[in-house]
Amino acid sequence: MATVRLIEYENATPEVRAVFDDIKRTRNVAGVNNFCNALANHPMTLKRTWKSAREVMQPGALDPLTKEMIYVAVSVANNCNYCIHSHTASAFAKGMTPEQYAELLAVVGMASETNALATAMKVPVDSQFLAEAGK
Amino acid sequence: MATVRLIEYENATPEVRAVFDDIKRTRNVAGVNNFCNALANHPMTLKRTWKSAREVMQPGALDPLTKEMIYVAVSVANNCNYCIHSHTASAFAKGMTPEQYAELLAVVGMASETNALATAMKVPVDSQFLAEAGK
Amino acid sequence: MATVRLIEYENATPEVRAVFDDIKRTRNVAGVNNFCNALANHPMTLKRTWKSAREVMQPGALDPLTKEMIYVAVSVANNCNYCIHSHTASAFAKGMTPEQYAELLAVVGMASETNALATAMKVPVDSQFLAEAGK
Amino acid sequence: MATVRLIEYENATPEVRAVFDDIKRTRNVAGVNNFCNALANHPMTLKRTWKSAREVMQPGALDPLTKEMIYVAVSVANNCNYCIHSHTASAFAKGMTPEQYAELLAVVGMASETNALATAMKVPVDSQFLAEAGK
Amino acid sequence: MATVRLIEYENATPEVRAVFDDIKRTRNVAGVNNFCNALANHPMTLKRTWKSAREVMQPGALDPLTKEMIYVAVSVANNCNYCIHSHTASAFAKGMTPEQYAELLAVVGMASETNALATAMKVPVDSQFLAEAGK
Amino acid sequence: MATVRLIEYENATPEVRAVFDDIKRTRNVAGVNNFCNALANHPMTLKRTWKSAREVMQPGALDPLTKEMIYVAVSVANNCNYCIHSHTASAFAKGMTPEQYAELLAVVGMASETNALATAMKVPVDSQFLAEAGK
Repeated sequence: MATVRLIEYENATPEVRAVFDDIKRTRNVAGVNNFCNALANHPMTLKRTWKSAREVMQPGALDPLTKEMIYVAVSVANNCNYCIHSHTASAFAKGMTPEQYAELLAVVGMASETNALATAMKVPVDSQFLAEAGK
Repeated sequence: MATVRLIEYENATPEVRAVFDDIKRTRNVAGVNNFCNALANHPMTLKRTWKSAREVMQPGALDPLTKEMIYVAVSVANNCNYCIHSHTASAFAKGMTPEQYAELLAVVGMASETNALATAMKVPVDSQFLAEAGK
Repeated sequence: MATVRLIEYENATPEVRAVFDDIKRTRNVAGVNNFCNALANHPMTLKRTWKSAREVMQPGALDPLTKEMIYVAVSVANNCNYCIHSHTASAFAKGMTPEQYAELLAVVGMASETNALATAMKVPVDSQFLAEAGK
Repeated sequence: MATVRLIEYENATPEVRAVFDDIKRTRNVAGVNNFCNALANHPMTLKRTWKSAREVMQPGALDPLTKEMIYVAVSVANNCNYCIHSHTASAFAKGMTPEQYAELLAVVGMASETNALATAMKVPVDSQFLAEAGK
Repeated sequence: MATVRLIEYENATPEVRAVFDDIKRTRNVAGVNNFCNALANHPMTLKRTWKSAREVMQPGALDPLTKEMIYVAVSVANNCNYCIHSHTASAFAKGMTPEQYAELLAVVGMASETNALATAMKVPVDSQFLAEAGK
Repeated sequence: MATVRLIEYENATPEVRAVFDDIKRTRNVAGVNNFCNALANHPMTLKRTWKSAREVMQPGALDPLTKEMIYVAVSVANNCNYCIHSHTASAFAKGMTPEQYAELLAVVGMASETNALATAMKVPVDSQFLAEAGK
C-alpha cells in the first residue's frame, strides 16, 4: 500500500492531465503506470521526472535496450522493488532475450561479489587505472 | 592501505603463480592488478573468483563492453572505489566513448533518483509488469 | 511474516511489560507497535532501543517533525519497508503537510541522483568544503 | 582522482559557460564547485542537474536549511564522500549550529540501527500505519 | 512474483537435474529451494553458484553456523528479503539459539549505527589500525 | 579530513573525560580512538554509543571474536571505511587467524552475489522458511 494516493486521470488536474497525455503519446500506451499516478501528487516532481526520463532514456550513444538493462542493474543494486519489476518488464518489451537477461544478472551478481571483496580488503587502486582517468 | 598484504608474483606460491599466469595469458597483460594480488592471500578465493570472472565476462548474448558498463553501474550503486576505477578504465579500454560514458552515468543517476522515489512512496507494482514476469 | 514471534503485552514478562508501560505512557498510546513486540524477544535490546529513541527523538536543537523527516529520508535510503511506513505515518501525525512530504521526497530523490553521479566520477572534494570542516 | 577531466571556465564551451554563469549568479559565488566542473563533460547532464537542483532546493514548504540537512542525511546513508563534505559545508553555511548537526547525526545513526533491526526481523507493518497512508 | 519461471525438477533438462540431484544429496533434502529453481533458467549460473556455495560454506577455519550467521548479517545489510528468510532459517536449522540470534541482531544494529556516524563525520582512520593491516 | 574537530583528552570537558577514562579502563588502552574523539563533540551521543557498544559487544551467547567478525561483515556491506579498518584490526587483535579472515570475506562476497541474484529475480520465499520463523 502506497504512502500516497494514486491519482488517476479522471481525478487529475488539467496540469497533471497534460503530462499524462504527453506520456501516453510518447510511449504509445493507453494509460500511465502507478509510479506516475503516485508522482502526480506533486505536479512539479511529476513534470521534472518525466522530462528527465525522456531526455535520459532517448536513443543516443547507447541504444534504448542497453539503457534499460543498466536501469535494471542499478535498481537491483539499490533494491527497488517497483523499479526491478517495471524496468525488467520494459527491457523484455524492448527485446531483451532470456539469455541476455541471464547474462545481465550474472554480471550484476559477479560485480556485487567483487565489490564486497575489494571494499573489505581496501585494495589500493592501481596507478594505470588512475592514469586512464580523465584523459 | 589494504587490510591484507599484496602478494606479488615473486613471492607467490606455485599454486598462485599458475593462476597469475593464466590471467596474464588470457588478458594479454604483463602483470595482474592489485585486486588479484590481494585475493592471492586465499588461493581458493583467487581461483574461484578468476574462474567466475572469466565465465561471466566472456562474450555471449551480451558483448564485452555492455557487460563492462553494467559492471560499472553496479559498482557505482554499491560504491566500490576500487571497482569504479578499475571497471571504468576497462570499459574505456574496450572502446567506450566519452559520450557513451556520459549516457551510462545519466542512466545510473536517473535510476538512483526514481529508485528512491518509488521506494519512498511504496508504489504498488502494476499488474501488467507482474504479468510479463516469468513468461 | 516476521522471523521472530511478536510478543504481546499479555504474554510478556514483567520486565518487558514495564518497558511497554513506559512507551505507552510517554507516547500516550493504547498499545505498542509491532517493532516493539518483536524487540521484546530480547529485553536488553528492547530497553536499549527504547531508551535511545526517547533520547534521540526528543525536542532539542531540532524540532520533532524535522527529526522525523530526517528519519524518513534515512529509512528510504536504507530501504527499510517497516520504517518507511511507520516514520512516514509518524511525520504526518506530527503535522507534516502533503506539500512538505512532497518536497522531502524531491530532496531525497535529487540527493540520490547526485550521490550516484559524484560517486561514479570520483569527484575530488573542493578545498573550501574541507576547510569548513571541523572549524 | 576523478574518472573525468574537470572542465574549468576558461576551457569550457559557450554552452557550458552559460550554465556556470547562471550558477555563479544564483549562488552568488566566484566559481563553481568540482562537481559542476565534472558534470560539464556532458552539457546536457550539467544543465538538467543544475535546473533540478535549483527547483528542488528552493525555499518552499521546507526551508533551505531543513532541505540541506535532509540532503546530508541521504548522502550519509548512500555513503557519497563528495556529497557528505559539500552538503555538510552548505548546511553550516546556511546556519546549521553544531548542536543541530549533532542531533542530525544522532537521528541518522538511530535510524540506521532500527532500519537494520526491522529489516532483519521482517516486522510486519502495523495496520494503523497503512491506514494513514494515502489519506 | 518472480521475474523468471521457477523450473521444477520434472520440467528441468538433464543438465539441470544433475545439479538438483547433487544439491539434494549434499544437503540431504527432498527438494531444492525456490532460489535454485529460479537459477535453473541459466544452467551455467546455477552450476557456478552451487559450486561456489558448496566451497565457501563448507566447514573450515570457521564453523558452518558462524558462516551462516555472517550470511544473515550481510543479507540484512543488503536488505535481501529472500536471503534474510532462507539464511535465518538455515542458521536456526544449524543450531542457532534464540539468544545467539538476538545477539547477532544487536551487533548488526549497533554496527549499522556506528557505520553511519563514522561515515557522516569522515573520521580519519587511526594509524594503529592501518599499521595492523596486512601484517 | 573529518567534518568535526577531534577532541583530545587535554581539551575535553570533565564530562567527556569521564567517558574517555571509562573506555581506557575497560579496554585497557592508553588512549581512545579517533571515532571517540569525534563523538566527543556531542557528549550525549558519546555516552550513549559507548554504553551501547559495551553492552552489545560483551561476551554472551556469542563470543567476542564472532561478534567482531559480524561487525566487519556489516561494515563491509555498509561500506564504512573507518569501521572496516578499525573492526578488522580489532578482530585480528582478538585472535582472528588469516584463514578465518579469508573465509569471512569469502562468505561476505558469496552472500553479496546471491543477495543480488535473489533480489533481481524477486524469488518468492519458500514456505518452509516462513514456517520456521518465529517458532
